[in-house]
Order: sequence, then C-alpha cells, then structure tokens
Amino acid sequence: MSSEIRPPLPTSARTVFFVSDGTGITAETFGHAVLTQFELRFRQIRLPFVDTLDKAYDAARRINDAHNSDGQRPIVFSTLVKSDLSDVIRKSQGMHMDLIQTFVAPLEQELGVKSTHTIGRSHNMVDSEEYKNRIEAINFSLAHDDGQSHKNLAAADVILVGVSRSGKTPTSLYLAMQYGIKAANYPLIPDDFERNKLPSSLPPFRGKIFGLTITPERLSEIRHERRAGSKYASIENCRYEVNEAELMMKREGIRWLSSTTKSIEEIATTILQEIKPNRREY
Amino acid sequence: MSSEIRPPLPTSARTVFFVSDGTGITAETFGHAVLTQFELRFRQIRLPFVDTLDKAYDAARRINDAHNSDGQRPIVFSTLVKSDLSDVIRKSQGMHMDLIQTFVAPLEQELGVKSTHTIGRSHNMVDSEEYKNRIEAINFSLAHDDGQSHKNLAAADVILVGVSRSGKTPTSLYLAMQYGIKAANYPLIPDDFERNKLPSSLPPFRGKIFGLTITPERLSEIRHERRAGSKYASIENCRYEVNEAELMMKREGIRWLSSTTKSIEEIATTILQEIKPNRREY
Repeated sequence: MSSEIRPPLPTSARTVFFVSDGTGITAETFGHAVLTQFELRFRQIRLPFVDTLDKAYDAARRINDAHNSDGQRPIVFSTLVKSDLSDVIRKSQGMHMDLIQTFVAPLEQELGVKSTHTIGRSHNMVDSEEYKNRIEAINFSLAHDDGQSHKNLAAADVILVGVSRSGKTPTSLYLAMQYGIKAANYPLIPDDFERNKLPSSLPPFRGKIFGLTITPERLSEIRHERRAGSKYASIENCRYEVNEAELMMKREGIRWLSSTTKSIEEIATTILQEIKPNRREY
Repeated sequence: MSSEIRPPLPTSARTVFFVSDGTGITAETFGHAVLTQFELRFRQIRLPFVDTLDKAYDAARRINDAHNSDGQRPIVFSTLVKSDLSDVIRKSQGMHMDLIQTFVAPLEQELGVKSTHTIGRSHNMVDSEEYKNRIEAINFSLAHDDGQSHKNLAAADVILVGVSRSGKTPTSLYLAMQYGIKAANYPLIPDDFERNKLPSSLPPFRGKIFGLTITPERLSEIRHERRAGSKYASIENCRYEVNEAELMMKREGIRWLSSTTKSIEEIATTILQEIKPNRREY
C-alpha cells in the first residue's frame, strides 16, 4: 500500500546546526540532502540572519553548548559569505561544513573574477524581475485553481488537468512559487466524461496541457479523508473516474504521469521537462 | 523607490549545469547561492533524474558539447549519490563541484557509519509523515486564505493579519509548502478599523497571530497594478489603512514586520523565529 509510513529512524545524539547570514534555506536544503544519506535522525537547529560578529559569537556559543550537553561535537552547515563571520564558526567546537568558502574560492580562480561577498545576496531579490514573476505566478495560479477562471489562459505556462484530488493544486502552487511558472488547473469531472470532451476552454491550449493521474486505490483513500463514506470517495467511483480520465487524455494526446508515488517536487520537475515553458532551459 | 529593477548583469560565455539523480532542486538552490556571489549571468541547464550510467554519459556529452560551443569549460554542480555516476561527470570537460562526495565522505568518518547511497532519498518522501504534513498544511492554508474560513483555527500554527495586498497569501502558502506550517490569514479591513477591533474570531488565538505591514507608497503601487485608479489603490486610502492597521496591532500587542523590502523567504523565516510553532526548533 502506497500510504504506509516508514518506521522512524534511530536518533543520533548529535545536534545539527544550519547557520546563515540570510534565511538559512540553502544551508538547510543542502544539509538535508547530505544527512538523508545516513540512517539517523538528528536534532536540528536553524540559526538564520547571522550577519554581525556579535551574532556569529552567539551562534558559536550555542554550538559549543550543544557539544557540552550532547557529549559529541555538533555538525554545522554554514552559508556565511563574509569570511570573518565564517572564521568565528570554524573556531567553534562543531564539525564545520562551510558551503560557500569550499566552492567560492575555486570558482574565483576558474572565472578569473572576485566574488562580491554580498550578504544574503541570493535571497535579496525583492526588486528583481525574477521575484516579481514568482509573485505574479502565485497570484495567477491561485486565481486559476480548480477551473475557477477561464480568463487569460493564453498567459498560462502550463495547464494541469486530472480528476479531483489527483495533486493538481499543490503542484500548480509549487510550480509558481519555485519557478515563477503560471500554472492553471482544471478538474476532469463526470460531466466531462459524459460529454466525452475536454472542458470547453482548453482545446486551444493543447500544447501546454499536462495530465495527472493516480491509482483508484490511493485516490479513494485521499477522498475518504475528506468525505468519509461518500459515493465520491468510493472505490467504484474512483475506478470509473480514473479510467475515464485516462481514456480522455489518451484520446486527446495529452501527456500525463501518475502522481501516486511522486512528491510535488518530482511531479513539477517532470512537467517542466515535458512542457518546456519558454522562459527557461531544462 | 523600492520597486526599481536592478540593471541586468553582464552575461558570461559559460554554461552552468545542475546534474542530479533526483529533481535537481538541491543542486540548483545551492548553485544559485554560490553563483550570486559573482556579478555575472550564466546560461543554466538542469539535468534531473540522471540515475543510470546511460543518462550519466548523456549528461557528460552535453557538458562536453557546451565546452566546445562556448569555448570555455562549463561549471557543473552535481548531487549524484552513486559514485559510478559521479565518476562519469567528473571525467567530463566541466569544472565539477561534487556536492555530495565533498561532504559525505568526511561525515561518514565523523559519524562512524556508512552512508546509504540511496538515489533521490531526500526527495523520495511521499510516504513520510513530514510530506503528509506539508500537503495537509497546503490544503489548510488554501482553505483559510483571506479570512475565508473561521473553522478549525485552533489547528493553525500561525495566523497572519494585515491590510489587503501586504503579502499574507504568498507567505502563508510558502510556510505551508516549505515547512508544513498551517498558516491562516485574515485581512484587516476598514470595517475592523471602524469597529476598532480585531476580526471577532481571532482574539482567542492571540499567541499565534503575526502581522504584516508595508509602506503606503509600495502598497499603492501594488494595488494600482490590480485596480488602476481606484480609491482602494489611492495613496490617501493606503496611508489611512496602513496607519490604522499598525495602530491596531500595537494596541493588541501583535508582533509584526514590514514586508516592503523582504522576500517571502525572509518574511517566513522571521515569523518562524518569532512564533516558534511547536513542532520545530529554530
């Protein structure tokens, strides 16, 4: 059954710190990717906005305190652009993984230019075109969630279709938030199956339509969580809807994937590979 | 003016590749943090799902092709867990930043355990409790967007308040998507200012309320994009609303920040530091 939950991993006595002069999101994302290579759970502490020497000394103190109370040295992932701040952390009692210094110095040599050492640069993007696109895309995706609006579909980068609760909404929002992709989504409902046609506003945009499907068993589970015991959630109805939706997508030549065992990150990445919206290269 | 757009950076002749056995999101997030230390734009290509030797050779070929056509060696950020795949990329003509191998080997030594070398482990989380929490939080935040529902506010981790278009919706969705935080949001509107009271369902939950404010000038700009020339967007009305909202938040003892020059990542990080929802440590 796809909804089984993995047993919890054994817990390590170690504390992991993510130290950053910005939000710490990069340090944390990266640290997670490395730590999931180990079958252990760690106590995790994020220390964002460490952008002065005082705050760096504070962070070092917390790392040393964890060393004393855990009896093992903490693991520290840091993205501190200024080397004086990074030095303070390196001298603490943690095992220091310095993500910026490790790669920036060799890149300076390769590119033949000095880095700017600008604190928080990668997240200080409120005024950039890219950031505006992301906010605009979030608003677009919300306004075009669940077939709410047919206006301005020409501006959509991607139009997701699929039965109710197949994962369209979180995927649309993720595409918007992470990539600035304007993603509309339309449910395929029994009315469409009876008419044997896509929702009427969609055919002109076939090139950017992408389908999500799901196994009837998983769909029924998800729908029972929302409306226990309903016909809507029954396995018979889920089988009917999924079957009809897949037939329709085949007939219309719509590319699709099954969301059953995929995370929204994996679904979004696959969609971008398939649809190739103009503004980016994949 | 906070809405000025930075001039575009000079474009480098180099191509940057993000190569991953999973979605490539970690490689890309991390690569961006490093590359923004340089005042250059790069052509960027993401190669996700490189999980077989064949695909690794394909990736190496694309890297070599870019070398030939650019006349400079590409920069390659990779998160390939299996060392045979990573080896293929290392032997290509790119400058290889191997994010996993660089840090996993020292960690194996420090922890005294071997890594699992599981491909895509960090994004293969559909069945985990954490992933389910994220999806549930997205649904909660959507259902409680813009004061739509007063039901089940006890289950919210955070309740954002602020005038219309102060950034509540994207912040709520980001908190849900990135952290599995259930974030409701309520607009503060002229009715509330006239009654001189918070929306009536909120006072029992004061401990988890957080306010967003914004400068009247920026607010007026944003509102004009939505409803040009309206009273709603006029600078006089924006001054009135922002002033009343700030007075109310002060009187009610609500913590708040200005979203004017902050990204949703920065706003979300600050909120988590202030509100400290139960389930995580910050």
